[in-house]
Amino acid sequence: MKLYEVGERKLVEELTKNFSIPMDDCAIMDDGDEYIVLTTDMMNEQTHFPKGSKPYYIGWYSIAVNLSDLASAGAMPVAILAGISMSRNVEKKFFDAILNGMEDCMKEYGGKLVGGDTKESPLLTISITAIGKVKKDEYMARKGAKAGDAVYVTGTLGKEANLYIGNLDRLLHVKPRIKEGRKLAEAKVVTSCMDLSDGLASSLHQLSKINNVGFLLHEEWLPVDEVAKKMDLPLEFALYHGGDFELLFTMPEEYEKMLDMEFKKIGYVIEEKKILIEKKGETKEIENKGYEHFLA
Amino acid sequence: MKLYEVGERKLVEELTKNFSIPMDDCAIMDDGDEYIVLTTDMMNEQTHFPKGSKPYYIGWYSIAVNLSDLASAGAMPVAILAGISMSRNVEKKFFDAILNGMEDCMKEYGGKLVGGDTKESPLLTISITAIGKVKKDEYMARKGAKAGDAVYVTGTLGKEANLYIGNLDRLLHVKPRIKEGRKLAEAKVVTSCMDLSDGLASSLHQLSKINNVGFLLHEEWLPVDEVAKKMDLPLEFALYHGGDFELLFTMPEEYEKMLDMEFKKIGYVIEEKKILIEKKGETKEIENKGYEHFLA
Repeated sequence: MKLYEVGERKLVEELTKNFSIPMDDCAIMDDGDEYIVLTTDMMNEQTHFPKGSKPYYIGWYSIAVNLSDLASAGAMPVAILAGISMSRNVEKKFFDAILNGMEDCMKEYGGKLVGGDTKESPLLTISITAIGKVKKDEYMARKGAKAGDAVYVTGTLGKEANLYIGNLDRLLHVKPRIKEGRKLAEAKVVTSCMDLSDGLASSLHQLSKINNVGFLLHEEWLPVDEVAKKMDLPLEFALYHGGDFELLFTMPEEYEKMLDMEFKKIGYVIEEKKILIEKKGETKEIENKGYEHFLA
Repeated sequence: MKLYEVGERKLVEELTKNFSIPMDDCAIMDDGDEYIVLTTDMMNEQTHFPKGSKPYYIGWYSIAVNLSDLASAGAMPVAILAGISMSRNVEKKFFDAILNGMEDCMKEYGGKLVGGDTKESPLLTISITAIGKVKKDEYMARKGAKAGDAVYVTGTLGKEANLYIGNLDRLLHVKPRIKEGRKLAEAKVVTSCMDLSDGLASSLHQLSKINNVGFLLHEEWLPVDEVAKKMDLPLEFALYHGGDFELLFTMPEEYEKMLDMEFKKIGYVIEEKKILIEKKGETKEIENKGYEHFLA
């Protein structure tokens, strides 16, 4: 059996079957009153950084997507370790620009480079491990959503459309929702939280499986990004494309007014284990599709 | 300027110029009475795993070399994060064997897989981050060697000769010196410690620079591995080849008898900032060479 018959999510599941909390964006380690929150992401030239990506934004992106995982747990970034493989023929200034992008992202959102490794390889590969901390009673997990809760997202959906109009800078200039994650964590009102790296549809299907619930979205409530609206099928981008790195969270509606931050209600948690979307009284089912490595 | 004109050690230096302790094998984070010790290593198909390497030993090696860094700090492994990039055409059983090798190494030496990521790439790349803990007063650093101390190594030197006789299993079956590292740490007698990933000559030159001292080795004291002795120039393998992953440490000679472990004295720390080797009264200088990525 080849890996393309298995798919990334099943492989990660096997890789991490002994995880502390197998279903979250991060792993956690007990540390007194706090959790040390750990996440790792590996990115490759061909898959993650389209031809023409600027090294500054490559560096920025590599840090930002890891901080996004910490944000979904409500954690503050503490330390970062970076491994970079590159060809020996790469220009020194290309390497320097990657580092600048990394540093600027940490300056803005937190974290400090404490360890690293560079190696030779014909392809550019960046592997980041990000370490954060969060008080135990503020930690946000994927498990906890209950029927009757409302569903929310930060920011906008469908930003991967930037790839299709060639705006690679914006595609890679991901803003990790550290501040929003902290506000949600401090409020202690969230019943489940994850980040949208795999796309909204796939993320809701994952939350559905973990929490044994379903979701009913309202199409006109979705904060579709301006760039996705320029596409032929904006909803496709908002639902099925990865790369938004927004927070997706659930909580009882009554807490909305407690939160001093930007977010948007997109629907409700329901008992029936289906992911549905409603528009003008008509309801359709949302498929479980989205980007997954190794699968076609 | 291309990276091959710069070299790996300079690049890592730039990558990590804001490190907590820039010159050690690991980064450290303050955690009450303890340090959290962090290290990361990235390994690629072409550079680290020669053609014909078995996936089980690839997995084992990837964990072992990271644990070796923790060992040099005197730390016990706590948690591991693994990122693996592979081609979609890789057989599932190849992936499974890598995981088995990783798990067996952790079972024997400590650590637990708590997070991971798999991605698609034409080349096999493995990136490991290992996290350990050590009491602050037991932490071993590279800085501290003083003229008059003796110099020691665990195990044998020159094991990279296995590559040249095609014994890849043994080459990759690295035994991280966790137990020895802990014994040295608990004894609190070591003045400096590092692991031998880059070869003895290169490691001594690094210690010389950090500690502003030199070394005088005795050639006949070197524990040259049996496999290196079969080569035309065994000493070349013992001095200039990487991949031994033994502990190199210094301490006042009087403490030798306190240590309940196998190790070998190979020479002394001297005031003159030179790395010298003596044989039958004749003394030669040891060059600063060894394996370094990006350089030819």
